[in-house]
Amino acid sequence: MDETSKRALALHRQFKGKVGIALKDEVDSMEKLSLYYTPGVAAVSRQVAEYPETTREYTNTNNSVAIVSNGSAVLGLGDIGPEGALPVMEGKAMLFKSFAGVDGIPIVLNAKTPDEIVATVKAIAPSFGGINLEDIKAPECFEVERRLKEELSIPVFHDDQHGTAVVVLAGIINALKIVERSIKDEKIVIVGAGAAGVATAHLLAYYGAGNIVVVDSKGIISSKRGNLSTHKQELLKYNLDDNEGGLDVALKDAGTFVGVSKGGLLTEELVRSMCADSIIFAMANPDPEILPDEAHNAGAAVVATGRSGFPNQVNNALAFPGIFRGALDNQVRMITDDHKVAASHAIAGLVRGPTPERIIPDIFTPGLSAAVAEVIKEQTIS
Amino acid sequence: MDETSKRALALHRQFKGKVGIALKDEVDSMEKLSLYYTPGVAAVSRQVAEYPETTREYTNTNNSVAIVSNGSAVLGLGDIGPEGALPVMEGKAMLFKSFAGVDGIPIVLNAKTPDEIVATVKAIAPSFGGINLEDIKAPECFEVERRLKEELSIPVFHDDQHGTAVVVLAGIINALKIVERSIKDEKIVIVGAGAAGVATAHLLAYYGAGNIVVVDSKGIISSKRGNLSTHKQELLKYNLDDNEGGLDVALKDAGTFVGVSKGGLLTEELVRSMCADSIIFAMANPDPEILPDEAHNAGAAVVATGRSGFPNQVNNALAFPGIFRGALDNQVRMITDDHKVAASHAIAGLVRGPTPERIIPDIFTPGLSAAVAEVIKEQTIS
Repeated sequence: MDETSKRALALHRQFKGKVGIALKDEVDSMEKLSLYYTPGVAAVSRQVAEYPETTREYTNTNNSVAIVSNGSAVLGLGDIGPEGALPVMEGKAMLFKSFAGVDGIPIVLNAKTPDEIVATVKAIAPSFGGINLEDIKAPECFEVERRLKEELSIPVFHDDQHGTAVVVLAGIINALKIVERSIKDEKIVIVGAGAAGVATAHLLAYYGAGNIVVVDSKGIISSKRGNLSTHKQELLKYNLDDNEGGLDVALKDAGTFVGVSKGGLLTEELVRSMCADSIIFAMANPDPEILPDEAHNAGAAVVATGRSGFPNQVNNALAFPGIFRGALDNQVRMITDDHKVAASHAIAGLVRGPTPERIIPDIFTPGLSAAVAEVIKEQTIS
Repeated sequence: MDETSKRALALHRQFKGKVGIALKDEVDSMEKLSLYYTPGVAAVSRQVAEYPETTREYTNTNNSVAIVSNGSAVLGLGDIGPEGALPVMEGKAMLFKSFAGVDGIPIVLNAKTPDEIVATVKAIAPSFGGINLEDIKAPECFEVERRLKEELSIPVFHDDQHGTAVVVLAGIINALKIVERSIKDEKIVIVGAGAAGVATAHLLAYYGAGNIVVVDSKGIISSKRGNLSTHKQELLKYNLDDNEGGLDVALKDAGTFVGVSKGGLLTEELVRSMCADSIIFAMANPDPEILPDEAHNAGAAVVATGRSGFPNQVNNALAFPGIFRGALDNQVRMITDDHKVAASHAIAGLVRGPTPERIIPDIFTPGLSAAVAEVIKEQTIS
């Protein structure tokens, strides 16, 4: 076991988990008890029951987000179930609170099917101001999110999809400035057609990308392949060439590689087959599709990974805390593509004068989540 | 609107709810981030997924209890729905934390039927170390609790039932000492056959009460009445006389009155028809079945109510924080009648030399929840 794993285990054992409940006031007298609990609370309950739209003024729903997972796609570990997912959800709750003051409540589900997940989240939804879906495997995650967005009037956001998409777009905006190319003309190859890959394709297309080829374990997702699931069929419209073939065919003369796949999948030779000054997002965890040095050796101009040890870490935590901060504060009922693009711009904008070593801001950048929250507000009001 | 209601509304608006999330440690460096979140957390997830029995060592499930309600029987307000229930559940979370350090997480449900409630609670159960059911109306609450106790391996406790029963038993233990009577020979009349009344009947019987007559809105629950629901049929075995009739018939020569019914229902005349030195628990909210002065005028030796302004307030908060503290700390999988009786004894035992004005300890008694937790431990180990 590596040193980080050992220390992580020890630290978790020491604190016995990472998050608990904080009280906004003390209950240290009979008087307080009678105001916060019976009999005083009856007036608050009556008020909220009669005017449900005022719930957020009298309860913590103005600041709370359920962090919901069934543990079916946890980190790189796969379907490890709800217990296994809980440490990640508690970690996420730490990030929500630390970076944006949001109260994230870890909710891990003993539920497998979209029907079960949707029914459970709908049932508990009145407890919260928003729903952050997490580590639910594809393709179930797409149906779950779509149905919940339709049926709930609070924001529902599958972070594995959109958190990644928002930060990748932020990085691409800055990377394209460096290489002086436009997203409209850029051929972008996305490898991995799970939650992150699919959502990134949609967001890049929404932002104006003119040619996106998505590759899964069977090769290029093209109209010539039979038996494509719905969420893969929806990607065909972005694929201008509509070639058949493997990663080598896809990457020929491509400008940008976006990997959410497997460590080591991208060779130097493949990078050399791309256009000059290629842009590489190698986000597989824990090992990237290609190491930054190798990619640069093969001609890449800008390289980002998912790891903290290298420059340009693509980290969802750049996006989700501020997005929910903005959504909660402005009573956003649905997080739209316009909100996401605005968030990408806000994140990209925090890097003044992007360089190949710095297209994405540091996660501890002061004012990061406030900047993201601010554009969520602007995008909602405008 | 009365002064308490006004102040309660103002206080809730000021803080916008009462509970939030607390972090057990700061996430103020890349290093902490990599230990509490990716990549370090992967080792913790793997550990917990492989050995689910260690979940409580690495997550906050060792200290967390879901406070679950569908808002179908909130205080005296009736079926006001999940939003209306939320202020009460947040209040309960304050009591859990203040009195016993337990992290209570308010979960209000958009769910009506026992099937929906059970399915939802089962689905979210891996997130918590215990389930406190709250303000779910009878008779649904009985089925919901029974099924959840059968199907989950964490403690499930419907506080409206058992919290009340535990504190009433504690009070009766001390009241009987004062009047020097034994519970075996005491005729006890319980008015109200909802959650609290039914559970109190069962617990008093389990403790050794020899004659319990339960009265509902239609009169005495006797075998001569047709169409009794299951949970009312189960009360027949405690009713020695098995008379038909109203409250007047039930109370004749009774020793103890336990009211969980309606304000003003018990007249002085009815109290006079009871035996000398009667014991009166008039717990209807906000107005008791009879005021203490009136009851004493009519010959009552000991009077308890649900109100804080009078002596002997029967308050569930005397019981549930310590019961869950003990259950969590000792990995109790099910809270049994023996646990409840032990809790009643512990609560009663905190009053040294009971007097008519003091049969129940003050809610702010130092060491209260620790004393209850301690007997939960002893009862579990023995």
